[in-house]
Amino acid sequence: MNYKKIGRINGFFLLVEAFFMLPPLILCMFDGDWRTAGAFGLTILLIAAVSTLLMIFTKQEGKHFYAKEGLISTGIGWILLSLFGCLPFVFSKQIPHFIDALFETVSGFTTTGASVLSNVEGLTMGLQYWRCFTNWLGGMGVLVFILAIAPIGGDSIYLLQAESPGPNVDKLVPKMRRTATILYIIYIGLTLLDVLFLLCGEMNLYESVCTAFTTAGTGGFGLKNDSIAGYSAYTQIVCTVFMLLFGVNFSCYYLILIGQIRNVWKDEEFRLYWGLALVSGVLITVNAFRCFAGGVDGIRHAFFQVASIMTTTGYSTVDFDTWPTFSKAVLLCLMVVGASAGSTGGGLKCSRLLILLKNARRNLRQLVHPNTVEVIRVNDRVINERVVTNTTAYFVVYALILTVSVLIVSLDRVTFTTSFSAVLACFNNIGPGLDQVGPMYNYGDLSILSKLVLIFDMLAGRLEIFPLLILFRYSTWKRY
Amino acid sequence: MNYKKIGRINGFFLLVEAFFMLPPLILCMFDGDWRTAGAFGLTILLIAAVSTLLMIFTKQEGKHFYAKEGLISTGIGWILLSLFGCLPFVFSKQIPHFIDALFETVSGFTTTGASVLSNVEGLTMGLQYWRCFTNWLGGMGVLVFILAIAPIGGDSIYLLQAESPGPNVDKLVPKMRRTATILYIIYIGLTLLDVLFLLCGEMNLYESVCTAFTTAGTGGFGLKNDSIAGYSAYTQIVCTVFMLLFGVNFSCYYLILIGQIRNVWKDEEFRLYWGLALVSGVLITVNAFRCFAGGVDGIRHAFFQVASIMTTTGYSTVDFDTWPTFSKAVLLCLMVVGASAGSTGGGLKCSRLLILLKNARRNLRQLVHPNTVEVIRVNDRVINERVVTNTTAYFVVYALILTVSVLIVSLDRVTFTTSFSAVLACFNNIGPGLDQVGPMYNYGDLSILSKLVLIFDMLAGRLEIFPLLILFRYSTWKRY
Repeated sequence: MNYKKIGRINGFFLLVEAFFMLPPLILCMFDGDWRTAGAFGLTILLIAAVSTLLMIFTKQEGKHFYAKEGLISTGIGWILLSLFGCLPFVFSKQIPHFIDALFETVSGFTTTGASVLSNVEGLTMGLQYWRCFTNWLGGMGVLVFILAIAPIGGDSIYLLQAESPGPNVDKLVPKMRRTATILYIIYIGLTLLDVLFLLCGEMNLYESVCTAFTTAGTGGFGLKNDSIAGYSAYTQIVCTVFMLLFGVNFSCYYLILIGQIRNVWKDEEFRLYWGLALVSGVLITVNAFRCFAGGVDGIRHAFFQVASIMTTTGYSTVDFDTWPTFSKAVLLCLMVVGASAGSTGGGLKCSRLLILLKNARRNLRQLVHPNTVEVIRVNDRVINERVVTNTTAYFVVYALILTVSVLIVSLDRVTFTTSFSAVLACFNNIGPGLDQVGPMYNYGDLSILSKLVLIFDMLAGRLEIFPLLILFRYSTWKRY
Repeated sequence: MNYKKIGRINGFFLLVEAFFMLPPLILCMFDGDWRTAGAFGLTILLIAAVSTLLMIFTKQEGKHFYAKEGLISTGIGWILLSLFGCLPFVFSKQIPHFIDALFETVSGFTTTGASVLSNVEGLTMGLQYWRCFTNWLGGMGVLVFILAIAPIGGDSIYLLQAESPGPNVDKLVPKMRRTATILYIIYIGLTLLDVLFLLCGEMNLYESVCTAFTTAGTGGFGLKNDSIAGYSAYTQIVCTVFMLLFGVNFSCYYLILIGQIRNVWKDEEFRLYWGLALVSGVLITVNAFRCFAGGVDGIRHAFFQVASIMTTTGYSTVDFDTWPTFSKAVLLCLMVVGASAGSTGGGLKCSRLLILLKNARRNLRQLVHPNTVEVIRVNDRVINERVVTNTTAYFVVYALILTVSVLIVSLDRVTFTTSFSAVLACFNNIGPGLDQVGPMYNYGDLSILSKLVLIFDMLAGRLEIFPLLILFRYSTWKRY
């Protein structure tokens, strides 16, 4: 294994993090909040030291770089990112317990948006900004960013594969580096557009930027204790629209940019995604009718919540835990399905669902006609059988991790709905669950063990399990 | 498609049912309960008429008989069986509503054991017997019985495949008919043994036979409102042991009979099954410690409940809904896993779990070494790749049906735990769920829509989805 290369990539990881801690540091200084500024400063120095050491020791890196190295670099990179990213919270004593701070940071980078804080408004401006920014950086991915700006060399497709959500990665253009750049340009463009629309409402620049960060990353960290509930209907509608936009596969936007709008419209995942959102929204509007003041109000709240859960953002405008059971069940289903592949959202992804359904249909047909051989097509393209087996195996491992996590979290004194929805919400990077972790509560009261399990789940959910799982396999580290 | 052959097999189905209605008819006459006797008599006449008509019209059956015909015969057969089997309840007006009676009968044949009755003790003796007997007949399967006694001809392996639980069918001996006979001999032998052991306790012959019927079929219909709770510790232990015995793959007993005990001990599914039972029992004993009066008491209740849920019987001695969340979560996991393939129990089956886990491990390995080709072995035998893909597809369809069912049942005014556990308990043929369908409640209060969905789930669970699903496909009935 190419340990040096892995070390070097992790050095890059930390450098990027240190660089992005500069804006909150400056913000703290403007705010006159020297204590938080000190916390950021200390963290930046620490990260700089570690990454310099890493860079020095890994100068003569080998060429050898394959799937295994790609997965391991990504797994370790995200863990380091979280471990160092939580230090400002700890040093400034605004989240004094390390595990709590780690939970909050992992929740940020993985774009989960689950919080241990009962009073978010108590954080200083700099930390608020950093907390929201973790959502944005985690959304498109740190490795994609590194690929876009630095020449890493080697087979960088493995890195993109390990970090990008979905069963297989679309290279938009033949060059890896250009693909990464295009993705980030679209990402930044859409975020800016979101800021502009939010500014037209009652939000100031700071609020708009922070909210756009968490919307773009489909993270869902709020600036207020009541999430988005206190804002006007206009702002809520802007959030709904942009959440849904950030849940679309970014290659669709690329196709639109190069004028192939017709291909976007024909895209099966695109149709499934919008179809599910529309049907769920209508079902909930009808079912939870009594919970809303008026019809138009109901439509707004229902679609806001559908967008928030399906794109795995996790904002809330109302306490959906008080909705009827059917509406809650619909939301739980959306939690599992999640957004599109190649978006910033989490969950199983619509394209995986497509492959799983088509494979199941094929197997049913083969049961009747055992001698036929059939391929699976998505968008008229044949899906590689390796991708199909990987997708079904992914689903099995997904269900397994879900089960074990629910078992462990159930050891806490919580209801079954709580433990089940807590794991579902963290694993799919959503944020709020039901019952004791519902939209009006937080994760602060859970035990340390539960928090550690949920931290694992959040990372596993964001990195799609395998980059994290491979770190825990004995044979990964065995010398041949 | 060979419609005549399908019709003929369904004729056999009904004949077997009519034949087995004679004992309860006689029991009613001895009891002097002429009203119920009349109900049985009327039903028998009706069935005899229909099956005679079927037999006459399908005399010149063709030879053509493949997987498709096997699946369809099984699917239709079980539906007819349930439709006619519920008539004695309706005619005797002891369960006046047709849907309720159908629910109870499907629950019986599929060995689920979920009941709509709040007062089971109110049923007359004959109906009690019939209700328990449906558990026994459904346990090993009606088709297996027909294969054992009648020469159907054709490729009867397809029939056995469609009705027997598990990812693939072991032929014990080369001849299909002898395999079926051996299975039923073992089944009858074990049932008799159970009766003998129960007779040593406080139960009379009638109670022993009925209880052995429901234990053997892992059905779980009780004679008393409080299930097994009112019986002595001895009887409860006998039930625990026999439930676990009936959850073992019956081919293991065949191996023991022909002296290959060592092969049984090496069987991976056998080990997984007993390992899971042991670990779950210990975990629950420790976790629910406070809920029990004493240590020994706790062990008994914990293992009783583990055996009852894992073998999908569904008896109860205590209200496990009051146990801590972790214990309930363990029970929910056991609900999904279920018993062994080739046993009378339901659920996903231990052997499917084995294949799913091994396949997931293989995929993880292939992710790291993309160029290796690897086979899956269970008990040192290579598993056909077709079986592997079918198993994973099965799991996906399983999850899908589960989700849709939970959504529909959630339309009732019930909690999420209720709708989730109701579907889980019916789909895996267990019986009691949690909350409003917990061991101390029943399914009577659910809406007709929910009951219909649960009826579908029970049948789909018992027949392992495909024989039922194929009936609803348009292309099945299309002429080529």
